[in-house]
Amino acid sequence: MELFIEKNIEVRFSEVDSMGVVWHGAYPLYLEDAREAFGEKYGLTYANYVAQGYYAPIIDMQIQYKQPLRHGTQMKIIARYKPTDAAKIIFEYEIRDRITNILYSTGKTVQVFMDLDYQLVWQNPDWFVEWKNKWQQ
Amino acid sequence: MELFIEKNIEVRFSEVDSMGVVWHGAYPLYLEDAREAFGEKYGLTYANYVAQGYYAPIIDMQIQYKQPLRHGTQMKIIARYKPTDAAKIIFEYEIRDRITNILYSTGKTVQVFMDLDYQLVWQNPDWFVEWKNKWQQ
Amino acid sequence: MELFIEKNIEVRFSEVDSMGVVWHGAYPLYLEDAREAFGEKYGLTYANYVAQGYYAPIIDMQIQYKQPLRHGTQMKIIARYKPTDAAKIIFEYEIRDRITNILYSTGKTVQVFMDLDYQLVWQNPDWFVEWKNKWQQ
Amino acid sequence: MELFIEKNIEVRFSEVDSMGVVWHGAYPLYLEDAREAFGEKYGLTYANYVAQGYYAPIIDMQIQYKQPLRHGTQMKIIARYKPTDAAKIIFEYEIRDRITNILYSTGKTVQVFMDLDYQLVWQNPDWFVEWKNKWQQ
Repeated sequence: MELFIEKNIEVRFSEVDSMGVVWHGAYPLYLEDAREAFGEKYGLTYANYVAQGYYAPIIDMQIQYKQPLRHGTQMKIIARYKPTDAAKIIFEYEIRDRITNILYSTGKTVQVFMDLDYQLVWQNPDWFVEWKNKWQQ
Repeated sequence: MELFIEKNIEVRFSEVDSMGVVWHGAYPLYLEDAREAFGEKYGLTYANYVAQGYYAPIIDMQIQYKQPLRHGTQMKIIARYKPTDAAKIIFEYEIRDRITNILYSTGKTVQVFMDLDYQLVWQNPDWFVEWKNKWQQ
Repeated sequence: MELFIEKNIEVRFSEVDSMGVVWHGAYPLYLEDAREAFGEKYGLTYANYVAQGYYAPIIDMQIQYKQPLRHGTQMKIIARYKPTDAAKIIFEYEIRDRITNILYSTGKTVQVFMDLDYQLVWQNPDWFVEWKNKWQQ
Repeated sequence: MELFIEKNIEVRFSEVDSMGVVWHGAYPLYLEDAREAFGEKYGLTYANYVAQGYYAPIIDMQIQYKQPLRHGTQMKIIARYKPTDAAKIIFEYEIRDRITNILYSTGKTVQVFMDLDYQLVWQNPDWFVEWKNKWQQ
């Protein structure tokens, strides 16, 4: 069972740089918006992590910019959860045109688990194992 | 004795909008940079507040945009501490050209004291009274 | 006839500072989101301005922070257009709780008209006069 | 001859998230600050590109987060230009502690050349070939 969400993106005026396209540094926020939407859908929000006594910081982020994003373009971001046995949370992303489905950008993030003292947790927390089982991941 | 600092501003590419000028929403960061520089100079940093068991959130911010800021312009921000008997920290700001002294922007911020439970503190904390006395404010 | 919009605000993780509340510098973006939503509703978008050969930069912004905004709180922002005979566009804002209607923050922005050479335009452009007439402003 | 710069980073209060560390989405700005400093040192600024009739947008960005960045930590970012025969500009980055030299983060960006109509340029522009020759790249 593939876990994913689609979320519409509305480019903000403030995100457009002097070249008239979305500044590359604004994309991490789009990816985070998608992760938050995913969390709402599947019960894996930042609040859930903290309630369980964990942080899930990003340790790796990769973004490919294939076509510039412009103000007013109708876009969506797709975030796909990629199962792994490691104590990690991996998402892959696509930013596409809602009308033409043109692929504007792809991305990937990797998160690990840390306790609230910011010490790395090497094994999947029980609650996350349960989450994986619930969704057959 | 007037307490103030001058800090140079380097406009970032990402702060310039599609009109080719600094986005108005970037200025609060300039003001905060100036407050942090002031705090370094006079011993009134965010870390100081927290070490004493207080937050000092902004309750009012006003910015006037008189001339647009452009990438590459040599600017400075002046932050002046404005003494008050109230349990508040008030700063007034000017953004000026380092060469011509042209006035690009003015601003003002008002901070209050809150405890770490985010409850408003109505009287000046002792440590802040000492700080005021030290600087004859 | 009062012109206004209500737009829901979803606090982003990245907008929350180390005090656990929305950083004060994030509010100008909320106000801009509201102006963009207003523009969509009433035909007064940034694209409209440029299509007519004008910019409408903000020359004054004021924000009062009455109650801290937290991640997960259900909020809305109300933006009200305030008619004026001057060649200005004035909005007043309220950020309120969608459930309790608690008032978290108020704000105001003033925009002027400039041509694409960034020269101030002292009189209301004809197209804006027509817009005002259309909406009986 | 290796081309590189070292630039100090001062973490801003606004860049620190509710976990008490720098939000991962703030790093692209650190990388851009380093690129701008590199451009100042070696004559390869955004203004240079545009003056020559080119943009140099980022098409790929990768960041690894090895140790969290905290407010007040004394850090520097090293940006190294990586020569390539392709019509690309490649930088590799390290964020290190100015005192202990601990490695906090690594990154990489790839830029291509586009004309002012945002069309990809497949060959190195003459002025960039001259720049490479000047620096024996």
